[in-house]
Amino acid sequence: MPDQPIRIGILGVGVVGGGLYQILESNAGEIRRALGTDIVVAGLADIDWDRPRDFSVPEELKTTDALALINNPNIDIIVETIGGTGVAKDYVMTALAAGKSVVTSNKELMAKHGEQILSAAAQHGVDVQFEGSVGGVIPIIRSLKESLTASRLDEIVGIVNGTTNYILTRMSQEGKEFAEVLAEAQRLGYAEADPTDDIEGIDSTNKLAILAAIAFGARVPVEQIYREGIAAVTTTDLDYARQMDYVIKLLAIGKRDNDQLELRVHPALLPADHPLAAVSGVFNAIFIRGPECGEMMLYGRGAGALPTGSAVAADVIDCARNIIHNSAGRVSCTCEGQAQIKPIEEVETSVYLRMRVADRPGVLGTIATIFGQEGVSMQSVIQESAQDNSAEIVWIMHKGPEKNLQSALSCIRDLNIVQDICSMIRVVE
Amino acid sequence: MPDQPIRIGILGVGVVGGGLYQILESNAGEIRRALGTDIVVAGLADIDWDRPRDFSVPEELKTTDALALINNPNIDIIVETIGGTGVAKDYVMTALAAGKSVVTSNKELMAKHGEQILSAAAQHGVDVQFEGSVGGVIPIIRSLKESLTASRLDEIVGIVNGTTNYILTRMSQEGKEFAEVLAEAQRLGYAEADPTDDIEGIDSTNKLAILAAIAFGARVPVEQIYREGIAAVTTTDLDYARQMDYVIKLLAIGKRDNDQLELRVHPALLPADHPLAAVSGVFNAIFIRGPECGEMMLYGRGAGALPTGSAVAADVIDCARNIIHNSAGRVSCTCEGQAQIKPIEEVETSVYLRMRVADRPGVLGTIATIFGQEGVSMQSVIQESAQDNSAEIVWIMHKGPEKNLQSALSCIRDLNIVQDICSMIRVVE
Repeated sequence: MPDQPIRIGILGVGVVGGGLYQILESNAGEIRRALGTDIVVAGLADIDWDRPRDFSVPEELKTTDALALINNPNIDIIVETIGGTGVAKDYVMTALAAGKSVVTSNKELMAKHGEQILSAAAQHGVDVQFEGSVGGVIPIIRSLKESLTASRLDEIVGIVNGTTNYILTRMSQEGKEFAEVLAEAQRLGYAEADPTDDIEGIDSTNKLAILAAIAFGARVPVEQIYREGIAAVTTTDLDYARQMDYVIKLLAIGKRDNDQLELRVHPALLPADHPLAAVSGVFNAIFIRGPECGEMMLYGRGAGALPTGSAVAADVIDCARNIIHNSAGRVSCTCEGQAQIKPIEEVETSVYLRMRVADRPGVLGTIATIFGQEGVSMQSVIQESAQDNSAEIVWIMHKGPEKNLQSALSCIRDLNIVQDICSMIRVVE
Repeated sequence: MPDQPIRIGILGVGVVGGGLYQILESNAGEIRRALGTDIVVAGLADIDWDRPRDFSVPEELKTTDALALINNPNIDIIVETIGGTGVAKDYVMTALAAGKSVVTSNKELMAKHGEQILSAAAQHGVDVQFEGSVGGVIPIIRSLKESLTASRLDEIVGIVNGTTNYILTRMSQEGKEFAEVLAEAQRLGYAEADPTDDIEGIDSTNKLAILAAIAFGARVPVEQIYREGIAAVTTTDLDYARQMDYVIKLLAIGKRDNDQLELRVHPALLPADHPLAAVSGVFNAIFIRGPECGEMMLYGRGAGALPTGSAVAADVIDCARNIIHNSAGRVSCTCEGQAQIKPIEEVETSVYLRMRVADRPGVLGTIATIFGQEGVSMQSVIQESAQDNSAEIVWIMHKGPEKNLQSALSCIRDLNIVQDICSMIRVVE
């Protein structure tokens, strides 16, 4: 075992990069014991060293010149915690070409350019690790690549966005509507000033692309993943769901369906006894099912300086082990070709529907008849009268093709007894 | 990447060894894609090839001579799925001395002789992997060693025995007493003919010794772990627990307490909203807490041919990667010295107590006064009258030293108003 320390450069000293730096400093003893040598932070690059940080970095380690770290021959590993696909991508590709292993927590980068990045790593005989890109501290990527290596997977379903899970949890617990809870989440720092990526499901879509590629061994074009955000979910829906023993979560769903993959991000009703149903607040979890492993779930903090920083630190140690043992590429990409993604119209799901109708006899029967004619069969129904001569009907439909449902709904929407189809949320069993 | 396949010998072709064999056969394509070469089963040793198995093994691979496989120079990895510490230990030590990496699912062996086995592996420049020894398919050992490498851990709490969790779950759901459910579990194959190891918590103790050693970086003498089984848990206790929003689980608890470790296996009341509370039936889960990782949980099937077989298969692939890359010892043992275990009398816990007392005024006050005098403070109390002039009092006491509680109970037991102290179960918050 060499005494030579492993030297790293950190690009982007924000939440995750800062968390990593703090962990490497405070847990140096644990790391030395696990690795047999030290991890030394040789430099940190950031474009803004004036913004407030709750930890201090020695002046001599600070730089604004990322390329100086990438091209420093004494640095072994580059950590990219900048985010996005602009300079982050350039830096990662440059570092790989310079023969450095790379650790990144950048989900957008890995979702959109993972193939190019992993090929470059293989070509240059170095590693790329990205555990921090999905699920924060949850060891999902290493588990998929190294613990479920011999298991086929049929299904991977994740709550992979803490912001939306926090919002849905508080809406459900406190009966407050989306806009109010979002505003509070922004005040508390749980949601960004521009929350689009989170609440529209874009962040979850990037993460699903990464998970599905590894779980199913095929590259996933992220833009082909069906996506719906949570802005349309109401406390009324959350209440009906609870009455029927469901919760509503924003799920990232990947399923194998013969030679195709179902890939979708949308709010979903989930049975209250499903392992994911109890995942509340900012926590994330990933549920997996396969013929060998059965049902599994990994649960933990999906974001934050120390949780995500600790995932990144573990990746740094993993790369360092490969440098020490000259074993880069020991665990490689296993994607074979492009995933065939099933169009959402052909996906079969169960759905929850809430509609406002005229409160008079025969209405339920008329609508039920149309569903029946279109081959959409009913699992349960609740009808409740409102104050204004209207009634609310809530249906849960058995699993069937989305196109049948859409065709039934287009007839039902035209009925004059139907005032509004308020909500349609898919149900996961 | 070499075309040379990696050749393994399997010792013990029971549930786990058989599951491994089936997985290696059926998932050969997945394994080749991950590893870049094939895993070939070069031989299987068992003392009894006549017992019924639901899969077939080619005659030319069968042997009753384990040493022939261990000493076969064409075999790279020995898998030990015999169990126990008799021949299993001899075979493992012989294989390591012969320069073979070893994969084992044997918790008793690793709990009792892990230090000796891991030292021998290091000495001979080979690997020992034992993911299948705890939690079946749950990737807890790899996660502790490779994903939480840079995280300090304060607490690890597991439901690591499926038999007892199945029994407690059915007792709770169906209101049947322990003996009846145990008998049914035996008929269904969820409990052994001699269930002692499971129901007395011995199996959980072995698993806790393994988990705690890795989580806390210190060798754990398994015989020093405090242990209580589940035979004394009654449906009455399960019902009271539910009334107070708790569940009762057999927990394996490891906690860091300054320079000491608290290590104990016993039934415990767990708040209904704790992530472990929803772990039902034969499922296992391990909950972890630390300053960097926060709260985490890994959940899955803790036993069974395919779940445990898939964990063993992943270990085989991991050893194979180290053989291909000449990187054995890449992840090594990190124990430093012996754990200092806190005596159970000095451990501070909250407890649930159920006692049968005379149903007359002043009884509760008399008992409460004694608790107060001994410094045991009360969190909640329920008193219910029974039919026979007696009453049942159920207390939950605040966290405090066990010795204070024991001293209060020894006074209370002597009161003539107290007919019986029926149950004392620790509470985990």
